[in-house]
Amino acid sequence: MTFSSTNTVSTSKGPDPQASIAAERAAAKFNPEEMHYFLEGSKERAESNKDMIQQMERDPILAADSKYYDLTKDEQRELTAVRINRLARYIETENFEDFNRRLSLVGVFDPQLSTRVGVNLGLFLSCIRGNGTFEQLNYWALTKETAYLKGLYGCFGMTELAHGSNVAGLETTATFDVETDEFVINTPHIGATKWWIGGAAHSATHCAVYARLIVKGEDYGVKTFVVPLRDSNHELNPGVVVGDIGAKMGRDGIDNGWIQFSNVRVPRFFMLQKFCKVSREGDVILPPLEQLAYSALLGGRVMMVLDSFRTSARFSTIALRYAIGRRQFKSESGNGDGLETQLLDYPLHQRRLLPFLALSYVISSGALKLERTIEETLNDLDSAVEADDMGGIMKSIEAMKSLFIDSGSLKSTCTWLTADVIDQTRQSCGGHGYSSYNGFGKAYNDWVVQCTWEGDNSVLALSIGKPIVKHILAVLEHDKKVKGSVSFLSDTKQFLNTEPVLKTEDDLKDLRKVLRAIEVAIIRIGVQATKVLKANNGSFDSIGAESLAISKLKAHHYLLEEFLRRIDELDNQSLKPFLITMGQLYTASIVLDKFAGEFLTYSVLPTELASYNSGTYIPELCKKVRPDVVALTDSFQQSDMMINSAIGNYDGNIYENYFKTVKDNNPPFNTKAPYSEALEAMLNRGSKDARERSEKSGEAAKILSK
Amino acid sequence: MTFSSTNTVSTSKGPDPQASIAAERAAAKFNPEEMHYFLEGSKERAESNKDMIQQMERDPILAADSKYYDLTKDEQRELTAVRINRLARYIETENFEDFNRRLSLVGVFDPQLSTRVGVNLGLFLSCIRGNGTFEQLNYWALTKETAYLKGLYGCFGMTELAHGSNVAGLETTATFDVETDEFVINTPHIGATKWWIGGAAHSATHCAVYARLIVKGEDYGVKTFVVPLRDSNHELNPGVVVGDIGAKMGRDGIDNGWIQFSNVRVPRFFMLQKFCKVSREGDVILPPLEQLAYSALLGGRVMMVLDSFRTSARFSTIALRYAIGRRQFKSESGNGDGLETQLLDYPLHQRRLLPFLALSYVISSGALKLERTIEETLNDLDSAVEADDMGGIMKSIEAMKSLFIDSGSLKSTCTWLTADVIDQTRQSCGGHGYSSYNGFGKAYNDWVVQCTWEGDNSVLALSIGKPIVKHILAVLEHDKKVKGSVSFLSDTKQFLNTEPVLKTEDDLKDLRKVLRAIEVAIIRIGVQATKVLKANNGSFDSIGAESLAISKLKAHHYLLEEFLRRIDELDNQSLKPFLITMGQLYTASIVLDKFAGEFLTYSVLPTELASYNSGTYIPELCKKVRPDVVALTDSFQQSDMMINSAIGNYDGNIYENYFKTVKDNNPPFNTKAPYSEALEAMLNRGSKDARERSEKSGEAAKILSK
Repeated sequence: MTFSSTNTVSTSKGPDPQASIAAERAAAKFNPEEMHYFLEGSKERAESNKDMIQQMERDPILAADSKYYDLTKDEQRELTAVRINRLARYIETENFEDFNRRLSLVGVFDPQLSTRVGVNLGLFLSCIRGNGTFEQLNYWALTKETAYLKGLYGCFGMTELAHGSNVAGLETTATFDVETDEFVINTPHIGATKWWIGGAAHSATHCAVYARLIVKGEDYGVKTFVVPLRDSNHELNPGVVVGDIGAKMGRDGIDNGWIQFSNVRVPRFFMLQKFCKVSREGDVILPPLEQLAYSALLGGRVMMVLDSFRTSARFSTIALRYAIGRRQFKSESGNGDGLETQLLDYPLHQRRLLPFLALSYVISSGALKLERTIEETLNDLDSAVEADDMGGIMKSIEAMKSLFIDSGSLKSTCTWLTADVIDQTRQSCGGHGYSSYNGFGKAYNDWVVQCTWEGDNSVLALSIGKPIVKHILAVLEHDKKVKGSVSFLSDTKQFLNTEPVLKTEDDLKDLRKVLRAIEVAIIRIGVQATKVLKANNGSFDSIGAESLAISKLKAHHYLLEEFLRRIDELDNQSLKPFLITMGQLYTASIVLDKFAGEFLTYSVLPTELASYNSGTYIPELCKKVRPDVVALTDSFQQSDMMINSAIGNYDGNIYENYFKTVKDNNPPFNTKAPYSEALEAMLNRGSKDARERSEKSGEAAKILSK
Repeated sequence: MTFSSTNTVSTSKGPDPQASIAAERAAAKFNPEEMHYFLEGSKERAESNKDMIQQMERDPILAADSKYYDLTKDEQRELTAVRINRLARYIETENFEDFNRRLSLVGVFDPQLSTRVGVNLGLFLSCIRGNGTFEQLNYWALTKETAYLKGLYGCFGMTELAHGSNVAGLETTATFDVETDEFVINTPHIGATKWWIGGAAHSATHCAVYARLIVKGEDYGVKTFVVPLRDSNHELNPGVVVGDIGAKMGRDGIDNGWIQFSNVRVPRFFMLQKFCKVSREGDVILPPLEQLAYSALLGGRVMMVLDSFRTSARFSTIALRYAIGRRQFKSESGNGDGLETQLLDYPLHQRRLLPFLALSYVISSGALKLERTIEETLNDLDSAVEADDMGGIMKSIEAMKSLFIDSGSLKSTCTWLTADVIDQTRQSCGGHGYSSYNGFGKAYNDWVVQCTWEGDNSVLALSIGKPIVKHILAVLEHDKKVKGSVSFLSDTKQFLNTEPVLKTEDDLKDLRKVLRAIEVAIIRIGVQATKVLKANNGSFDSIGAESLAISKLKAHHYLLEEFLRRIDELDNQSLKPFLITMGQLYTASIVLDKFAGEFLTYSVLPTELASYNSGTYIPELCKKVRPDVVALTDSFQQSDMMINSAIGNYDGNIYENYFKTVKDNNPPFNTKAPYSEALEAMLNRGSKDARERSEKSGEAAKILSK
């Protein structure tokens, strides 16, 4: 007996994965479009995103497809440049804010493209915005048209071979020559070679260089300078040497480079002088806060939290669609239809994946809030500077400090979690997760640098633990009233006991109470840290482990607080119960279960409740979410072009899509490899004895032994 | 003032990382050679390894170098084939056991090479050994010379597009045609396409096919058949289609392929018939245990645990050498020499890395034991089969069942942990960890498939939880006496209380007590699982989370038990204290701290002790290990060729080695990219208005508005 399915001959009936997804989609209990508006913050923004995606998925240069996964490093570099040229046409038609949003969408399907553009428009121009005067910004960004991907192309010269995290320790020098009114930029030794500089190898004409300001023999610390690298013929300037950093774990589309300056001279006015100034005579005015120089990095952090949302959403979608279509074993968990069981009907599989779905939902709110806050803060600062309002500047600096904590904890926590999402979702797809055409491999490799660049996650986490522990010390010792996003630390003295915060099963369901539990966990870990600190002569290095936990919990606090606020202000009542369930699954799994060691050690919840949470509550929540998974993932509204995964398409036809992709990219017509001759010669080689000219034979032995 | 260092001009003194490592090496408190003997099991084995490594690092075809990291997929495929040809010459000069050890060493610096060979010699021949008669094995392995990488090249046709974990559900058919005395091999539909088959795309001439035996319309389940794919001219046989699976996350040197059989006929005697036989008339004899068919996978598991040891050792070495040479910030943790602080002097950095060093030490013992046990068990089984001793066969089957538990829990736990080691060590090297030339990226991508293939880690873990929970049920209900490696389950009833096992700080240091604590944790989680089971009508699917934890703890129990046995039998007293400290750090961090949630929830240790373990004991142990790190990593005796990481070389000259590697592989002489013209055209493009032919100008508006 033969069956015919999609035009090929089958001798028995094959799997029909698309039927499962279609049936579950038809049973949706809410409108994914409406849910999408929640996730993107507003209907207006969501609709505008879709217009952009439509433009890009129809654009033959910009649209991603499976061929992307077979490109060599050199091909990726070139394709990325070609795509930048294409994006340069879009940037001429929309405002910068919209273009930034476009870049965030590009980040889902071609992160190396968004980064290679972002180094120029984000880091280079943000550095000028953060450190330069308005006139300097206006000149470099608009007069010279850098902001339109035209004229100049900037790179961001911060990191050196021997210095990354310790920016204040950078060793490139910018020595003021009062005679010629110039700065002399120099790389004193190999360790000071600018390293990892995105865009330097092939694209950049200019570099925002972080270098030590040396005036009259005095070292004023690290300041910023615009240094031309290439002329308008794209030839390197004398004294400037750049090289290609070469192959990387991911993002091979970016031309990261190294730069050495050998006494390169730039006019004095190429120094960025919003806060720090050198006069014609060599008098130096220093900035009110050195950290202001790093405000350039804040925008990148927003982007990374937003990227975390979109990327978690993408891979949750792929793995969940696969888990609905894929069946394996006929088990007790099946629904008795005689078919093998859908992967997603296994409780362990639900537990592996559904928390990531919930996580994506919760990150979206936090990302949007962080985006808003940073815009407001930087605008306030600009206004205060423009008005020369010192009070306003100091207020903005306070807001910036708070922002460094919030953005640092969110950047590190969300990028780590997203790396985990890509890794775990890949594993959940078994062997097929390992195929390049399903998207995980390249995405993981492209992703994980986010845990390292623009503030190494561990170093960031340390820098967040420190101010929080200091606040706690101040509360303990001086009853300090803490302000801003960590104002709950003011309540420290209330929680010096070991009283649990979550006591009953109902408490676990009450997200406000869980929020409080996170606060108390932070407080108690912080109090423990103050003790460790005292035992180690006040060395903050000794509380690394505590700082790490505090930083992560701080991020979860931010995310949950904003998610709850968004739910409260939501008009659409039909969505609320689903969002609350997402929040519950997120807190039960990603917060309480993942940090069970901490919550138990610090008695924030009793052992029986931890056991109930892990053994009963999480499985129950997973079971509750299970029927809505297709609608919940459809709500991300990522099109097949953005998903770019053969097993993750909307139609759920996993096997045929995947087989076709593999065949299209590797036509089976070529049954022999180009190097087949070598293999064949090996297999058909003569005997060892013959190849040794029978020199070791018995006959030879007889002769040679004589 | 200018300085000269290694022949380049420096205007200030650069970093001197090699001085740190040299000084610490000189202060070694034990002999790394002697420690190496412990890690490799014996002096004899260790010395023989070194001879092999020397051969290979001098062999221009086999030796790894930094160029390896710049190869495209096609180049990797070809290089791997060329290297197989080279290895084919070594295999003619040594016995199979030695060659296997050689492959294990190759696995450190070129895992795709060892796998591509291993599919043929390991999986294909193991399948024949496990399922074929002695005569069949002798014929295919020796008469046809497959075992010498000659004549034939085998692949292992188990996985299908729609079936991986559920081997019993495979859909390829082998239908007996009694008229012609042949089996007809057929792929009935797309889902049954053999998928991921290593070696199929380009290398293999034969395939060990797992297919459903159909005789006279009856389905006898999945059995094994040798099916020729290509003739001696390497041309595909009619009815056989293979295709290339294409790009993968890693291991692009392996030609994984897909295979479809369209009524391919093979003689009846191509069926592997050690346990299962079909007579000329079509009478079927079935095997005593279906699992026997999967014994082919056991050898691979040993290899993976051994790989876990070697790979953890490699990346611990790289990251620790870097952390000794690299300095960042002048901090309180520094030693007051005026230099910035070595990364490894930060307590958090110690805590991130040193547990992995300890883990590598502990895995080595477990890996060697598993290797021994599997060899013995398979030999016993072979002897029993040869002697037709049914009692012996049944005994071997019991031993195999125990081995499936031990090897399954070890394979999954160790490969997961090693993925974590590569990831975390990479992150600990900051940006430089992301450069291909430092080895992490390719190694991670090559590694993670180990978590998926030959038994998906999660599915394996489930399969290990089940028998353990069943044992516990039997103990609870029938006072069963449990035998083998989980005999401690017999004590279940003693631990139904909530009495802690570890009570004092001294208990944490006593590794025998910690071993007991692991046993009690397994028992209590298992007892909890029996309750969940009852609440879910006995569905083992419901205890997935518990099974996962049990499986991991079971692996740690095995590792620790064997490590302690090895220490006990050690003659060299000078090494003992260092080994015990390694064991303590391993248990405190990788076991007790990592599973703190479980140990606390099940009251195996009280909260104050968990707090002490995490906050005081682990930092103390790290501090204790810190001075011996160079000696402890040197003890792995991995040469620079094997390490193949510019920042991980023995000399510790991280910056110069790394810079040289980057420059050598990417000569900076080419200052423009091949695609530079496209970039330049973008930057120097005309104004938007001009490019739009001024159609939107005010002048045009006047005309067009009329």
